Amino acid sequence: MQRERTVRLQYGSRVEAVYVLGTHLWTDVYSAAPAEAHTFSLKHSERVRVEVVRDGQAEEVATNGKQRWLLSPSTTLRVTMSQASTEASSDKVTVNYYEEEGSMPIDQAGLFLTAIEISLDVDADRDGVVEKNNPRKASWTWGPEGQGAILLVNCDRDTPWLPKEDLSDNKVYSKEGTSGPCARGGGQGGAMQTLVFSPGLGQGGGRSAPQPPGRTSCTAILSPAPLTPALPGGGGDLTSALLPPDPFFGQRYVHILGRQKLYHVVKYTGGSAELLFFVEGLRFPDEGFPGLVSIHVSLLEYMAEEIPLTPIFTDTVVFRIAPWIMTPNILPPLSVFVCCMKDNYLFLKEVKNLVEKTNCELKVCFQYVNRGDRWIQDEVEFGYIEAPHKGFPVVLDSPRDGYLKDYPMKQLLGPDFGYVTREPLYEPVTSLDSFGNLEVSPPVTVNGKTYPLGRILIGSSFPLSGGRRMTKVVRDFLQAQQVQAPVELYSDWLTVGHVDEFMTFVPIPGTKQFRMLMASTSACYKLFREKQREGHGEAIMFKGLGGMSSKRITINKILSSESLVQENQYFQRCLDWNRDILKKELGLTEKDIIDLPALFKMDERRQARAYFPNMVNMIVLDKDLGIPKPFGPQVEDVCCLETHVRSLLEPLGLCCTFVDDISAYHKFLGEVHCGTNVRRKPFTFKWWHMVP
Amino acid sequence: MQRERTVRLQYGSRVEAVYVLGTHLWTDVYSAAPAEAHTFSLKHSERVRVEVVRDGQAEEVATNGKQRWLLSPSTTLRVTMSQASTEASSDKVTVNYYEEEGSMPIDQAGLFLTAIEISLDVDADRDGVVEKNNPRKASWTWGPEGQGAILLVNCDRDTPWLPKEDLSDNKVYSKEGTSGPCARGGGQGGAMQTLVFSPGLGQGGGRSAPQPPGRTSCTAILSPAPLTPALPGGGGDLTSALLPPDPFFGQRYVHILGRQKLYHVVKYTGGSAELLFFVEGLRFPDEGFPGLVSIHVSLLEYMAEEIPLTPIFTDTVVFRIAPWIMTPNILPPLSVFVCCMKDNYLFLKEVKNLVEKTNCELKVCFQYVNRGDRWIQDEVEFGYIEAPHKGFPVVLDSPRDGYLKDYPMKQLLGPDFGYVTREPLYEPVTSLDSFGNLEVSPPVTVNGKTYPLGRILIGSSFPLSGGRRMTKVVRDFLQAQQVQAPVELYSDWLTVGHVDEFMTFVPIPGTKQFRMLMASTSACYKLFREKQREGHGEAIMFKGLGGMSSKRITINKILSSESLVQENQYFQRCLDWNRDILKKELGLTEKDIIDLPALFKMDERRQARAYFPNMVNMIVLDKDLGIPKPFGPQVEDVCCLETHVRSLLEPLGLCCTFVDDISAYHKFLGEVHCGTNVRRKPFTFKWWHMVP
Repeated sequence: MQRERTVRLQYGSRVEAVYVLGTHLWTDVYSAAPAEAHTFSLKHSERVRVEVVRDGQAEEVATNGKQRWLLSPSTTLRVTMSQASTEASSDKVTVNYYEEEGSMPIDQAGLFLTAIEISLDVDADRDGVVEKNNPRKASWTWGPEGQGAILLVNCDRDTPWLPKEDLSDNKVYSKEGTSGPCARGGGQGGAMQTLVFSPGLGQGGGRSAPQPPGRTSCTAILSPAPLTPALPGGGGDLTSALLPPDPFFGQRYVHILGRQKLYHVVKYTGGSAELLFFVEGLRFPDEGFPGLVSIHVSLLEYMAEEIPLTPIFTDTVVFRIAPWIMTPNILPPLSVFVCCMKDNYLFLKEVKNLVEKTNCELKVCFQYVNRGDRWIQDEVEFGYIEAPHKGFPVVLDSPRDGYLKDYPMKQLLGPDFGYVTREPLYEPVTSLDSFGNLEVSPPVTVNGKTYPLGRILIGSSFPLSGGRRMTKVVRDFLQAQQVQAPVELYSDWLTVGHVDEFMTFVPIPGTKQFRMLMASTSACYKLFREKQREGHGEAIMFKGLGGMSSKRITINKILSSESLVQENQYFQRCLDWNRDILKKELGLTEKDIIDLPALFKMDERRQARAYFPNMVNMIVLDKDLGIPKPFGPQVEDVCCLETHVRSLLEPLGLCCTFVDDISAYHKFLGEVHCGTNVRRKPFTFKWWHMVP
Repeated sequence: MQRERTVRLQYGSRVEAVYVLGTHLWTDVYSAAPAEAHTFSLKHSERVRVEVVRDGQAEEVATNGKQRWLLSPSTTLRVTMSQASTEASSDKVTVNYYEEEGSMPIDQAGLFLTAIEISLDVDADRDGVVEKNNPRKASWTWGPEGQGAILLVNCDRDTPWLPKEDLSDNKVYSKEGTSGPCARGGGQGGAMQTLVFSPGLGQGGGRSAPQPPGRTSCTAILSPAPLTPALPGGGGDLTSALLPPDPFFGQRYVHILGRQKLYHVVKYTGGSAELLFFVEGLRFPDEGFPGLVSIHVSLLEYMAEEIPLTPIFTDTVVFRIAPWIMTPNILPPLSVFVCCMKDNYLFLKEVKNLVEKTNCELKVCFQYVNRGDRWIQDEVEFGYIEAPHKGFPVVLDSPRDGYLKDYPMKQLLGPDFGYVTREPLYEPVTSLDSFGNLEVSPPVTVNGKTYPLGRILIGSSFPLSGGRRMTKVVRDFLQAQQVQAPVELYSDWLTVGHVDEFMTFVPIPGTKQFRMLMASTSACYKLFREKQREGHGEAIMFKGLGGMSSKRITINKILSSESLVQENQYFQRCLDWNRDILKKELGLTEKDIIDLPALFKMDERRQARAYFPNMVNMIVLDKDLGIPKPFGPQVEDVCCLETHVRSLLEPLGLCCTFVDDISAYHKFLGEVHCGTNVRRKPFTFKWWHMVP
């Protein structure tokens, strides 16, 4: 809001001006004076406050001042009012000019004021309700004491018969035959933020409001902009505003700002009415767009025909577009997703049993949708967006695009279920772009800095060069959300190359704590050596499995393979590199980490694939863990790997279910986690309360 | 720098490891134990410090400890060394494992250490000298106490026979036949920042250094990256590094990083040598690139044939690319630029006289170069870049591209004279893209926030919509430099639409203060009315001029034109809108502003052009002002406008020279400022000392 405005007087004339409550008018009593004048005195009506400002010193002027002041270039008047006018030009300031010795004024200059109240209002204090003229509405700050409005990207689809997200078209439909909230999700229940433009009169609300005087009728222009300090304008692709349904327009929302519509003219008619708009975000924060947008209203004054309108006032509101937020394993599950395949009937049944133990629902993606693609973990990542007035889940669609590629848009996107994707234009998509390679930690504190929404974890080839890496557009998108600062791990040593192949997080039931579980080949060797020493060297792995068991793999055989030992020493170094990064970047200590036995085998490209089902690749549903059944060495008819893992996890209150994924997932280089996906409850913590 | 590293022991084996001074090695004494072991004891050589860490509590171990510790998953060893090893594997830690009641060890695990000192070093403390392993080299902070290295964009041209900036090609030439600093400007005198990679041994410098043991020979990889926290990699288009000339390569710098060269492998041979690199910036900060880049070195360890190298250490240095900085009128002039035209001989002579009074040189752009384009103010903006080790002027070339378009690249770019430009891909270029519309204020303080390098000022159509606006790529570039936060003014009400048509800044000689001069139609009317009252109503304007004077324009005529009065009231409102913004955004008060009389006339598109030469469009050379001669009403044979302006400016110590620009500039809608340009001394204030 431009709070100071200069108005020029002219001796011998009456100047009419619109005064906006909350601003100061400055007038140049000196340059408006007749040439022969040397002093001036002032009269003004009661509702006007006039100060004479000389060299920065202000002195208030009585209503009917007898006092004379010397004219000087550094003497100006400051005019303020605290109430709206009841009639146009009903408030006045009169300047009388005098010659050096004269007692009668030689001339006069008059300022006739119409005080109005005008503001652009939003929910800047984040309580879900639009308040009046919040003084901090034009800036945006983080933290529990932060202020500034929040916008949601309108990325859900309220009209089931349309193929895309709401924001992707310019048409806005209402639900037919109802007068309720329209299909675009405006109003109380919708994705859109309310914006109120009040060109009315403060206390004069009920009365018939003054028309601005003929020479100063006004036009208001609304325009959106990305927020770069003092560089407004041009934000049409970032946000849009809509007028609510009007019977006259056939119950449709009217699109007034956004895309090509860079401004909207509102005829200022006076009156006390408020104009209601709904505002939606069109783009998520991303590289080059930090997420702040602003909407301005400018009041323009009419002088005369043939003379362009002049701006006399602007008001600004700032919004931050809510980031997309990922949900770590410690949050309660809402839905578990799994694909129904020709070959995974038993797996599906085991997952169903597991889900039935928890408080969530199973969502099966059928064959006509998945078309043979079982890797539902890799195709999508579930997250959410939230504002004080509204929140809903949003699925991030991977650029991987297997046969499941239409699933998120066709099956997930819907009313109050949003969709977003990032696809590279030129870069090739690799296996590291699958979202098994995109995880998020629980809330952590690192050297005193808190990450109340955790940190995103992605796998990469760093610190080596030239390997596979998640595509830049997705990395940039994740980074730009700001609230879950990403950490890049080293996953390119794996054939598939996903972070979920070597780490996961489990809650400790009944506490706010968690443990990080990491695959560990050294833990596996340690266990196998123990078992060997206890006399179980001939214990057989992969028992009961068709093809694999025929080889009769025993603990002794595994421990005696020099090449397997060396390879797994190398894999352990890769694991330890990540372990060290995770300890540093998540502020973890040894006691926060549990090593789960794992073995890897080197493939022809010298990358690692799991030797037996990789237990860390589990599904976590509150205290219930669905762990890939490892088919480890049978010691007294029990798999010693299962026994060991139970001994590590069950004392924490966790419940281990070992799920046989060997034929339907493991042999295709994935496990339980790769073949499932979970939508979880949002954090109760509000993202705007953090300081990134 | 990753300071913590896990190394796995193995009972019955000797594990060799490279230890980097300044890091901690963690070893898992528990998982390395034989199955039957219950306790352990430790021996280590003198130069090694070993701590047993149990549940976060560390306890130091004596060299030849008799003490026994219980084996437990939460018990680890932390190993540190403070000196480099003198021989490979010369330092040891031995773990003895015991059975529950045994007094003799049942097995051992050995850790053989080679301690080396390795670092990537830059001038992170900004004193112009590279220091050793600055602990704050991996981050970048602003302010007088700030740390972090600074890079220059190598945008000058050290090889006169090449057509473009140095950075635009991959070839690097030295001056032929000399062994001095090479043409790319490396070394002490050049644009490039020095980077030292020390794979040597701290104190062991002079001695023959140990080769790393056979199984742990190392490879170092250097790679550049844009700095986004914990997301390194992929910065090849932002920065490049070069090896200094080597006689073997024919005195050429060898380009090792940048563009397509994303990493460079240095064979680690031990030894005490330092490797010297020179680093240059390739891109200025811009939208989506905040200006921070990093270079990493990763140390990779060799295990065995067929096993990939594993990363064991990374070190990182961060650079900020120096912003392009504009120079306000208060800085001393170095060169004045003006075009030589067919019709501006007298103007040129007057400018030459003016320049001779000051301490700077005149640079005339001749007709074969300017090809009839006289608007040298509009084609370029002079600025500079600076780092602790070097600085030089850089010209920003406007996307305007009149006939002067080749001038900056062909005539200005050269050794220690840089060049940068931004051209829109799709947006049309308008008159607002000329750099008469790009100015910068002197240093200001606004509500307690200081702008020690001033603020950039550009003209726009805001707050109106749909008008002309400076192209986004230039606005984004200016914004991204961060150190002179731009302010957008409203200049679209003018036919030409440049901010230099209504404002400029003058120094107050001998002080650090300045005044803002603003065109004012109300000041002009006030002056004319005074003169009328004094009996000079018939004073003639444009006296002595051919075509114009024939109309016999007097003060009375001007004051009696109703339409001119009304138009200029409107123009004053446009001026006042800017005046109010400038007061707010630069923290100015009335006494900082001087109103210079001006009149405008409305054209057929209802935009403003100067009615008489627009005095605010002046050239400022220290105390000497070259002001467009206004040809105002002659009062007692003197132009009353000149007299008035002298009375405003000369008391401040300024010296007014009125330059006749009417036939060569004014009639083509420009004045003195539009037809000249000034390169000024850089600020003595260092930009990295500010906090943007």
